[in-house]
Amino acid sequence: MASPEIEVLTQALARLPGLGPRSARRAVLHLLKKRETALVPLLRALELVNERLATCSTCGNVDTTDPCAICADPRRDQRSLCVVEEVADLWALERSRLFPGRFHVLGGRLSALEGVRPEDLSVDRLIARLTAGGIDEVVLATNATLEGQTTAHYIAERLEGFPIRLTRLAHGLPVGGELDYLDEGTLAQALRARRPID
Amino acid sequence: MASPEIEVLTQALARLPGLGPRSARRAVLHLLKKRETALVPLLRALELVNERLATCSTCGNVDTTDPCAICADPRRDQRSLCVVEEVADLWALERSRLFPGRFHVLGGRLSALEGVRPEDLSVDRLIARLTAGGIDEVVLATNATLEGQTTAHYIAERLEGFPIRLTRLAHGLPVGGELDYLDEGTLAQALRARRPID
Repeated sequence: MASPEIEVLTQALARLPGLGPRSARRAVLHLLKKRETALVPLLRALELVNERLATCSTCGNVDTTDPCAICADPRRDQRSLCVVEEVADLWALERSRLFPGRFHVLGGRLSALEGVRPEDLSVDRLIARLTAGGIDEVVLATNATLEGQTTAHYIAERLEGFPIRLTRLAHGLPVGGELDYLDEGTLAQALRARRPID
Repeated sequence: MASPEIEVLTQALARLPGLGPRSARRAVLHLLKKRETALVPLLRALELVNERLATCSTCGNVDTTDPCAICADPRRDQRSLCVVEEVADLWALERSRLFPGRFHVLGGRLSALEGVRPEDLSVDRLIARLTAGGIDEVVLATNATLEGQTTAHYIAERLEGFPIRLTRLAHGLPVGGELDYLDEGTLAQALRARRPID
């Protein structure tokens, strides 16, 4: 019985990850009730993102400039490249401020279930960057999931023959992790990769 | 490490009910990735709602016209008024197509916890509508929650002395139930068996 405008908005919100039809309707009602403090700010924020943000044609990051601030920053280590699945992973690594080099966003992970094939990822663009030269190390920082590891294996194969050091993030106990709460896969990895105590 | 535009959008989404900071960030990444199929449609839907929708100055419903389609419909029973907490409750009743009269949206429920006082609800406007005359029956269709029933009691007291039949939805509602979550069968039972308030 809601007006068509409301139905369309409800459907647009319901397609967001984390929201279903019912929670989308609740969100719409919230937006309608808090017009000035919720609906208008969300509208303006979406407008700004839509107007200003672009995908970096070099690394796949999302930023107001192309190339993005990371690619354009001369203080970043140009010889080191970190390959991640999604922009979210790039942000997570940037929050840690630990990686001094630049990034390459694949745009997903290989997945038979979700129908994601190699040509859906930006692997060719990664190879083009390596072919252009000047890169010494590639860190494969895909997720520690089955799909993430499959993707890392696939990329490692594609990068064979390039004169680069190819590494991946270490697997093992997370900081603060308790053995009793960890899955067997993590335990197995941590045990296999055990190191001498110095 | 995301741009300020993305931070602002993430915060605007995180304030929606059902989304927290982390799920809001996931939603933003989804919007950035599916620019044409997710971000732009959501933006357009919000624009339309913001441009076209207004709150009915008579009943508090949200519609493209003021008075809303229900208030303006001459086929609706002008003598019967159904008082609900929120627009969502009005929509729930309208979906059941069982109530032939018009509505009055309170804009909430009395709640000491949430700091909602009588003057925060549109009770004065309800009394003004009754004072204007022409209404024979008021159905108090607040939720079957503690706050909803407290609100119904408060309104019943305020409406004492008006020459109206004051009813409430029958207690076929499950205790703790909220209108928006009920199936039509239960709503129909509750509406059919509405009883005078003693």
